[in-house]
Amino acid sequence: MIRIAVDAMGGDHAPVSEVDGAIQAAAQFGVAIALVGQEDRIREALAKHHTAGLSIDVVHASEVITMDDSAATAVRRKRDSSIRVAARLMRDGGVSGIVSAGNTGAVMATSKLVMGTLPVVDRPALSTVLPTQKGKPAILLDVGANVDCKAHHLEQFAIMGDIYSRAIFGIRRPRVGLLSIGEEDTKGNELTKEAFKSLKRAPINFIGNCEGRDIFKGEVDVIVCDGFTGNVALKLSEGLIETFRVMLGQEIKKTLQAQVGYILAQRAFRDFNKRLDYSEYGGAPLLGINGITIVCHGRSNPNAIKNAIRVANEFCKHNVNHAIDTEFRKLGLTKTVSTV
Amino acid sequence: MIRIAVDAMGGDHAPVSEVDGAIQAAAQFGVAIALVGQEDRIREALAKHHTAGLSIDVVHASEVITMDDSAATAVRRKRDSSIRVAARLMRDGGVSGIVSAGNTGAVMATSKLVMGTLPVVDRPALSTVLPTQKGKPAILLDVGANVDCKAHHLEQFAIMGDIYSRAIFGIRRPRVGLLSIGEEDTKGNELTKEAFKSLKRAPINFIGNCEGRDIFKGEVDVIVCDGFTGNVALKLSEGLIETFRVMLGQEIKKTLQAQVGYILAQRAFRDFNKRLDYSEYGGAPLLGINGITIVCHGRSNPNAIKNAIRVANEFCKHNVNHAIDTEFRKLGLTKTVSTV
Repeated sequence: MIRIAVDAMGGDHAPVSEVDGAIQAAAQFGVAIALVGQEDRIREALAKHHTAGLSIDVVHASEVITMDDSAATAVRRKRDSSIRVAARLMRDGGVSGIVSAGNTGAVMATSKLVMGTLPVVDRPALSTVLPTQKGKPAILLDVGANVDCKAHHLEQFAIMGDIYSRAIFGIRRPRVGLLSIGEEDTKGNELTKEAFKSLKRAPINFIGNCEGRDIFKGEVDVIVCDGFTGNVALKLSEGLIETFRVMLGQEIKKTLQAQVGYILAQRAFRDFNKRLDYSEYGGAPLLGINGITIVCHGRSNPNAIKNAIRVANEFCKHNVNHAIDTEFRKLGLTKTVSTV
Repeated sequence: MIRIAVDAMGGDHAPVSEVDGAIQAAAQFGVAIALVGQEDRIREALAKHHTAGLSIDVVHASEVITMDDSAATAVRRKRDSSIRVAARLMRDGGVSGIVSAGNTGAVMATSKLVMGTLPVVDRPALSTVLPTQKGKPAILLDVGANVDCKAHHLEQFAIMGDIYSRAIFGIRRPRVGLLSIGEEDTKGNELTKEAFKSLKRAPINFIGNCEGRDIFKGEVDVIVCDGFTGNVALKLSEGLIETFRVMLGQEIKKTLQAQVGYILAQRAFRDFNKRLDYSEYGGAPLLGINGITIVCHGRSNPNAIKNAIRVANEFCKHNVNHAIDTEFRKLGLTKTVSTV
């Protein structure tokens, strides 16, 4: 049975969301769960549920990293934090993957420090999944692990994204695009122009530059960019989705007739919201580390935690890291010396 | 009477949208319009309207720049294009501003070449306006005039954005934010970390780093970034707004009940759509040139053209360029020698 560690102290609603989501995942996917964090608080949350027959245990960690801690401080000073203990479990083979809704910077730094990077990979990349008009989600990476990148990093991100898309979404030949500011080959900044050349040579289905608007149309399966641009894009999308709901709500509240209409169309709105709901997509895998770390939104609800555990489970079952290692070696991609 | 030149051959629906929008603007704002482009095609479109009492004339230009022309080719080879003739009119004092829905790269390059940059400004910046939850729009710049920027360019963009916000939106003390990947001062890439320091010293109400999600919340009036990031952000927003509409439409079509609900709530949807509609906001001013150029979306409808003319008119009436010149001189900002 695959066992996944859940950082029970991570998110804004910790440990309640984490415990709820973990129980749902254990029941639904048949995985074993290690809930990592302050034992008394976790047991208190667990006591509210029926967990008979489920493989759930608690691993104590005395410290909690907050959103105000810098990643560096968290890694240096809080050596018994829930994320650190979870990462150690992963490193030592106690679990096959970890899920955390905690401070993203701290989760990434701790994962890299404790588990290390895959020997072939220069820089791990945080990848996320975005909804598209066509139904199949699109993978965007890097969304924040590397703010300043070189072209060869983007090439590695592209290959990792390609493997992710094939393994987890079953897309046979993912269309890989480079996020830029025009579809013509010559458009872009210094970084993307350089990366364009590398990606053209890479053994992937590179379809060229793509623009912000293509992401949601479902015309590209993997979109590659540096971590600064990707993080801006991700947060902008989240902000706009939220704004969309707020504005529609404001307008509908204005008249009784609109409110009645809204009630009649409620199911359509629910399904619509579900398509845009980040919690359905199962968090952001940190690709390229020597382990499996799925980073969740701080605001994660139990559904988001459950789906992140599903993704960690699938990463493990499809042996994504082995695929990355094999593919990189086949391509003769070796770690460059100058980078971390 | 202020006279504005409209590039009648620019957009996807040229010259119909341009002529329609120009007539509406002439009637509504009392401006004079020079429609620039192929005279026979413009006169044909004009013949379908009553224009008695309006100050509208046609200025012939034999060539048309298409979306497939590169900006460089357009500028070098098509010397009698509608945008070139319009820019010359501006330079020679025949009009006070120009509006074009043509090839953005060509419009920007032509404006810079023909009108020149304001003596004090290093790099003109394309600015756009985004809807917010609070109602007041937010200014985002640069959205594509400069793909690779230095910190001092971002500082100049911030000051120009501040002047734009005060002059056109009447905001007394605009909150200026730097688009980055976290609110903490230390977050960002090499460029934004450097720019952060410059902005802190600048005589503006700098509120620090802001994230993608803050833009739409209405908590910042001017958001500064390099032209690559800004262009990605702009196109992503456009794509996501379109995707919302498509997805919502898909869900509502599924049941009759939802369709009835939609009809009842139609007015709310209309008002909601209007709030997100780019055509209400009046195009993207190219700040820092020695003239007034308002760039419109290629898909501009007559309403978008009309509103862009309104903005050109307001830029002229509020003497925005004079304000930029005065402010930059007061601050001792002079053109750096190394840049264009």
